[in-house]
Amino acid sequence: MTINILFAAQADRWAQYEAPLTVALNETGLAYDLRTEFAPGDVDYIVYAPNSEVQDFTPYTRLKAVMNLWAGVEGVVKNQTLTVPLTRMIDENGLTQGMVEWVTGHALRHHLEMDRHIVNPDHVWDHTPPPLSKDRPVTILGFGALGQACAAALLSLGFPVTGWSRSAHPMDGVTTHAGAEGLTQALTDAQIVVLLLPDTPATENTLNAQSLAQLPRGAVIINPGRGPLIDDAALLAALDSGQIGHATLDVFRIEPLPQDDPYWTHPKVTVTPHIASETRPDSASRVIAQNIRRNEAGEGLQHLVDRSAGY
Amino acid sequence: MTINILFAAQADRWAQYEAPLTVALNETGLAYDLRTEFAPGDVDYIVYAPNSEVQDFTPYTRLKAVMNLWAGVEGVVKNQTLTVPLTRMIDENGLTQGMVEWVTGHALRHHLEMDRHIVNPDHVWDHTPPPLSKDRPVTILGFGALGQACAAALLSLGFPVTGWSRSAHPMDGVTTHAGAEGLTQALTDAQIVVLLLPDTPATENTLNAQSLAQLPRGAVIINPGRGPLIDDAALLAALDSGQIGHATLDVFRIEPLPQDDPYWTHPKVTVTPHIASETRPDSASRVIAQNIRRNEAGEGLQHLVDRSAGY
Repeated sequence: MTINILFAAQADRWAQYEAPLTVALNETGLAYDLRTEFAPGDVDYIVYAPNSEVQDFTPYTRLKAVMNLWAGVEGVVKNQTLTVPLTRMIDENGLTQGMVEWVTGHALRHHLEMDRHIVNPDHVWDHTPPPLSKDRPVTILGFGALGQACAAALLSLGFPVTGWSRSAHPMDGVTTHAGAEGLTQALTDAQIVVLLLPDTPATENTLNAQSLAQLPRGAVIINPGRGPLIDDAALLAALDSGQIGHATLDVFRIEPLPQDDPYWTHPKVTVTPHIASETRPDSASRVIAQNIRRNEAGEGLQHLVDRSAGY
Repeated sequence: MTINILFAAQADRWAQYEAPLTVALNETGLAYDLRTEFAPGDVDYIVYAPNSEVQDFTPYTRLKAVMNLWAGVEGVVKNQTLTVPLTRMIDENGLTQGMVEWVTGHALRHHLEMDRHIVNPDHVWDHTPPPLSKDRPVTILGFGALGQACAAALLSLGFPVTGWSRSAHPMDGVTTHAGAEGLTQALTDAQIVVLLLPDTPATENTLNAQSLAQLPRGAVIINPGRGPLIDDAALLAALDSGQIGHATLDVFRIEPLPQDDPYWTHPKVTVTPHIASETRPDSASRVIAQNIRRNEAGEGLQHLVDRSAGY
């Protein structure tokens, strides 16, 4: 029987995904029909962007699963009409790799103090080398798949890495801490802090006036995770006081970042436009197609969201 | 018998090295005397900076070896009065690691197109992610110890790496080419070119008008090697024409780079002040001390310079 797959996202996404998703579904050998419109009662799977028109899942009576196009599921996880399994995108070859590259690149940028050479109008020749990475501790808050992948890259470059998460995630070569008490330990020595926590009520404002004050003076914040992880007013105050040396932010409470947001003009802030981890259509399509194949074969879905935890 | 070790470098170096070199020599268990002055006929080893006062080695009749403080030996290799073995600094834990960090950092900076976010006065929110590293070929010209260490770091981040050197240096996972003919092949697909060749008559102007034209349009040049590897006028012309997208230069024919040099003001050039690979006194001292110990034990010197090849 033909498997009906609804692609529910905005039009520009369909333009990106139609071809690679067709290729990836053909590879599975399944008989399928992929479209942007179906009668709701005919749909088996929804490939889903939370900002799509589909917000009420009630009419989708035959639905087997909803497959989110991105890792972040805060736009769908609380939807009470969704009663079938929800998967997130864990795309090793696209999303994870992109995150590793962005995090490693910006960690090295701050480690090497590149900005003073990139912008050097007075032509200062200051022959002082930076410390080696072994003397630059990095702490990653949020130590799931993305956090651990970034940790592996930073470790291989010689950085001492500490990982923190709600529940313990041990990893060879990494100091790990868990829970509220562990957060203080994770922050004490961190010269660079990378935020990769999910966006949940429990993680909101993880970096606030109190936790920012626990960092060594001059620490750098790198946020490719989610905007609400940071208390923005507290971060701006800490940047102004010198407690925080710089913040490189890829995600914000409102995106695109409004033109009057103080982050745009703060001399110690770099804004990047939510590009750290962008799903790449070719590899993401393969993940979706293989997950449908698994479910149809009774092998179970991968990357299931735990909706009670909110992520 | 006491081994007399002359430290021949400028005063600021002695301030950096006296303590760590003493620690490292003590670790060897040798009976030694380390000073900045000796009667020449009493000296067994010279720890050497080519810009020191010692330029005539003839009076050093008991000399067993000269141990250069840096990797580059162009300032001493042609000295006809030097007839004993010459070693270069190969300091895995300092010099090599520093180079790996600098090269990887600047490769990622260009790969991720960071500059347009670091300097973004118009607050442009352009949500186009960069390609993944697998689609960003990097070529390293000069594939000795430093080149291979950088290649390993770039490979682990997913970049396709090509290495080129005078004689073949095969390495797992890397496409390697050698000789004049191989240079063209090494340049054809390179979006980022890293220069790590030694400074010899044969390598001068390796990047000139002809070789720059062999690169794909918009390629980026990263030079942490030596200034004379580049024909400066040809590079400036290629930057102006758009053939080369950017150059990040750490080394120059004259250092510090003169204030009137056009590199300082060119919008597509980043100048860094010869910091890519700075010998770190603690680890470099251990390399020197262990090499003296080896030689005294008849185990032979490591990191010997081949003076007929000029490096």
